[in-house]
Amino acid sequence: MNDYEDLGGGLYCFRVTTREHTQMIDITGRIREIVNASGVQEGLCTVFIPHTTAAVTINENADPDVQLDFIKEINKIVPWNDGYRHYEGNSAAHLKSSIMGFSETVILHEGQLLLGTWQGVYLLEYDGSRTRKVYVKILQS
Amino acid sequence: MNDYEDLGGGLYCFRVTTREHTQMIDITGRIREIVNASGVQEGLCTVFIPHTTAAVTINENADPDVQLDFIKEINKIVPWNDGYRHYEGNSAAHLKSSIMGFSETVILHEGQLLLGTWQGVYLLEYDGSRTRKVYVKILQS
Amino acid sequence: MNDYEDLGGGLYCFRVTTREHTQMIDITGRIREIVNASGVQEGLCTVFIPHTTAAVTINENADPDVQLDFIKEINKIVPWNDGYRHYEGNSAAHLKSSIMGFSETVILHEGQLLLGTWQGVYLLEYDGSRTRKVYVKILQS
Repeated sequence: MNDYEDLGGGLYCFRVTTREHTQMIDITGRIREIVNASGVQEGLCTVFIPHTTAAVTINENADPDVQLDFIKEINKIVPWNDGYRHYEGNSAAHLKSSIMGFSETVILHEGQLLLGTWQGVYLLEYDGSRTRKVYVKILQS
Repeated sequence: MNDYEDLGGGLYCFRVTTREHTQMIDITGRIREIVNASGVQEGLCTVFIPHTTAAVTINENADPDVQLDFIKEINKIVPWNDGYRHYEGNSAAHLKSSIMGFSETVILHEGQLLLGTWQGVYLLEYDGSRTRKVYVKILQS
Repeated sequence: MNDYEDLGGGLYCFRVTTREHTQMIDITGRIREIVNASGVQEGLCTVFIPHTTAAVTINENADPDVQLDFIKEINKIVPWNDGYRHYEGNSAAHLKSSIMGFSETVILHEGQLLLGTWQGVYLLEYDGSRTRKVYVKILQS
């Protein structure tokens, strides 16, 4: 059974359940699975997060301390409480998501994601725990 | 009469006049109009801002307080005055634009922008008021 | 002799040697050279950085003070030393890279990069000096 939906036309979707309020989750393997299934050799892979309090970035996939530092420092730059007016209380999550961005475009080459040696693609949860959707669009060139 | 120019080959352009020094303007409706006119069902929609003191992001389109918090907090993180050397005095606008980014890529599916329920696309003005250009490129897959 | 490798299928690669720890390097001319060589008239140009401590952005290409302000201010927002745990000591470089982003998508129109008058594409070095790779993918539409 696949861990993703094939929506046709090179569009795929999968879900990630986050467990913490602020969390980084490596989704590289799940994107790779889709790239393999698509059979596309050369093109672009666009990863898109259809939320406003979660985002996507690329980061080091080796030392887990990088992720701890990453979360701690961005929370310091955009504090959770800072006199915000928004009634839901999650304005910091909106801003952090916009700073990080809602999409990553990765080049496809010889049927693989053209990532650097240390690069992994991460879902960034800023207002969890929740179930998040990730769209992946594979474009053949 | 259309509110945009059709430059051919799936490329479109429209203008936004900003009224304040720092402002977020929802441009989702104007992008939708172009997507509809293009007739493209499956593909990618790239929104590109050809400026260095304005940017584009995705944010919540429900409570207007999110936008107030967003503007206030980013202005706190990157203060307008901070001993900058640039003679035009708008270095903060350059940095804020780079942090937010000059393009958004949104997937097209069944002739629609594949945005999440609460997502809207926003032009970010950081050195207004001005008339800003927005390019939209529709790519069929 | 070319200053880049042609990897086939519209994919190109070039290298940039940085000289300082934190540096902004204008790579617009090198991307233009690739766009010209490709002969593509209409499409998208994706610039991708396969590293985790370097990034890419667009910024003003006129007054060099903009770059000095840019570097100084982002270093203030994400300080090099801030009690990070990562053993390599470069957590700030990882976070700054994620904030700025690892790719830029620029529209191609009439065989040219559709940049604004003042826009240049910059490699951002946050943990130099090093030799960095830049991938450029040209997609015809």
